[in-house]
Amino acid sequence: MTNINRQWIVAQPSESEGMCLEAEVFGVREEPIPEPKEGQILIRNKIFACEPLVHAWVKGVPGRIAPLPVGATFKGHAGGEVVASRHPDFSEGDVVHGNLEWADFTLSAGTDVNGVPLSRQVPGFSLATSMITLGMTGLCAYIGLFEIGKPEPGDTVVVSAAAGGIGSIAIQLAGLCGCKVIGIAGGSVKCQRLVGELGADAAIDYKTADMVAELAAAAPRGVNVMFDNVGGSVLDAVLVNLAPFGRVSICGGLGGYDHPEVAVRNTIMLAQRNGTIQGFWYSDYEHRFAEALQRMGDWLQSGQLKEWTHVAQGFDKVPEASRGIFSGANTGKQLVEIA
Amino acid sequence: MTNINRQWIVAQPSESEGMCLEAEVFGVREEPIPEPKEGQILIRNKIFACEPLVHAWVKGVPGRIAPLPVGATFKGHAGGEVVASRHPDFSEGDVVHGNLEWADFTLSAGTDVNGVPLSRQVPGFSLATSMITLGMTGLCAYIGLFEIGKPEPGDTVVVSAAAGGIGSIAIQLAGLCGCKVIGIAGGSVKCQRLVGELGADAAIDYKTADMVAELAAAAPRGVNVMFDNVGGSVLDAVLVNLAPFGRVSICGGLGGYDHPEVAVRNTIMLAQRNGTIQGFWYSDYEHRFAEALQRMGDWLQSGQLKEWTHVAQGFDKVPEASRGIFSGANTGKQLVEIA
Repeated sequence: MTNINRQWIVAQPSESEGMCLEAEVFGVREEPIPEPKEGQILIRNKIFACEPLVHAWVKGVPGRIAPLPVGATFKGHAGGEVVASRHPDFSEGDVVHGNLEWADFTLSAGTDVNGVPLSRQVPGFSLATSMITLGMTGLCAYIGLFEIGKPEPGDTVVVSAAAGGIGSIAIQLAGLCGCKVIGIAGGSVKCQRLVGELGADAAIDYKTADMVAELAAAAPRGVNVMFDNVGGSVLDAVLVNLAPFGRVSICGGLGGYDHPEVAVRNTIMLAQRNGTIQGFWYSDYEHRFAEALQRMGDWLQSGQLKEWTHVAQGFDKVPEASRGIFSGANTGKQLVEIA
Repeated sequence: MTNINRQWIVAQPSESEGMCLEAEVFGVREEPIPEPKEGQILIRNKIFACEPLVHAWVKGVPGRIAPLPVGATFKGHAGGEVVASRHPDFSEGDVVHGNLEWADFTLSAGTDVNGVPLSRQVPGFSLATSMITLGMTGLCAYIGLFEIGKPEPGDTVVVSAAAGGIGSIAIQLAGLCGCKVIGIAGGSVKCQRLVGELGADAAIDYKTADMVAELAAAAPRGVNVMFDNVGGSVLDAVLVNLAPFGRVSICGGLGGYDHPEVAVRNTIMLAQRNGTIQGFWYSDYEHRFAEALQRMGDWLQSGQLKEWTHVAQGFDKVPEASRGIFSGANTGKQLVEIA
């Protein structure tokens, strides 16, 4: 082990109109491994979890996240092992994750810049599962489906980006609650896996399908609940097929966010169908977390809930992995494992 | 009085991409005044009320309204006097309104094609008020604001198309319930009247304003509730200024319906702000009608609620009046009075 700490930094401002950061925004800086001060721990990162939110760390979200200046170290969801501790609550060997610098080594005071406390690996589960299904990814799926979409058994539920990290969990949660589930994903391989492995009743390939017609065929009584990660034309196709009093839960806008060509045109359908589109910011629903983690943990242990991951090997894979989630390169949660 | 009955008919199919029907779609046919059969009444129309829904009578709304074929007589909201009755519930001289043929004279069996019963003029109020504030227009404003938007006293409420028929009522209802009210309308005259006559706290001219900036200035704590008749860029500007857990009530889409250039781009704000967009079809909220009509009737009688009308005189004004509501030619509810 050398004394060198590689850090992913914001090399230049992003001028992207969409969520996908340009490859040139990612740069590497090498510095000595830092020493923890009193109250700090030193973490050796093992996993970076690539979330659409990566763009927000760089560009900011008004009122939510301050943008990172050029030269700053990327922060994102990362996990690893405590290798030195001067913090009373953490010991060497503890496995933790949180909103951390994307570097080989990072200091933490146990609380990240946004006040989110560092979490420990969940006993009985891997670090990856603690970060994904029992972390933000699973909680987004759970809150967005049950707190916002509120499906009833027998309802028809559509999940967009269904083969992605959040979508692959949402689709299973809907099935576990007795709903008819339709996944929307890109490509026949993903669609086949949604039906064959995750129990979707139907899957629609947005790249080739006439979505309005295929949704009408798969959901003849209309769509009661949509869990939406995409927006734009995918959301539009569901709005045309919305059942009376149908509900759309907006988790993200992978396809639609500030891309004029994928804006939503059919909001008038909400008036015709008494429909609702409701967004959510998962961390504002903390009062549901304990229940969510208990139920998802039980389903994982019984094998009823599967976790799909898409793992890139090596520190240098960060730009490719972070950008690939916007073109659907991943099947399941995109991770970067650091050797 | 001659024996001639002028009828507005669908002269040719509409190829309009938007809600505004082409002038050529409107044609006049003259036939003899019909005779009521057993169970029918003959109504001499006095008022046609121009609603954005006019386009829907011609083009249809899937699952709601069957389209009118070429040659059929326009139907819409109309009111007049019973001049002959062979129906046990109606007498000569009764003043009624409902979904009726737009003609000098029309037959009715007391129930229109969509099953909506013919309504009588409300005692103590004019036919126009019975059709507007105590009819569909007022009920849309009341249901959309209170049942869907659910403002609390002290909330900031934005109403788009605020100088139109529904908007001019919604803006007053919000003020009567202790909200800070911002109207969006086209032109400085309308904006001045919203503040001076209807009690709006602020008004924004969408034709000249930087709406995002003016909304931010007028609603520094964000918009809690929007009552939206427009969609498109007006809705987008509010979404950027949405308060946490803000709610948008979609009544109509005057500006946005199937116009690609005014599609909604900022739905991702719903996730960042835990926001909701909910549409409604007013007749599905019939359980609230009695309360709504009682309260609005009381406010009208006490002078706390004003009714704005924009009256075109003469049968031949139907196309101009029906089309003008889409370009904001009217201030208040657009009516056509028949001589």
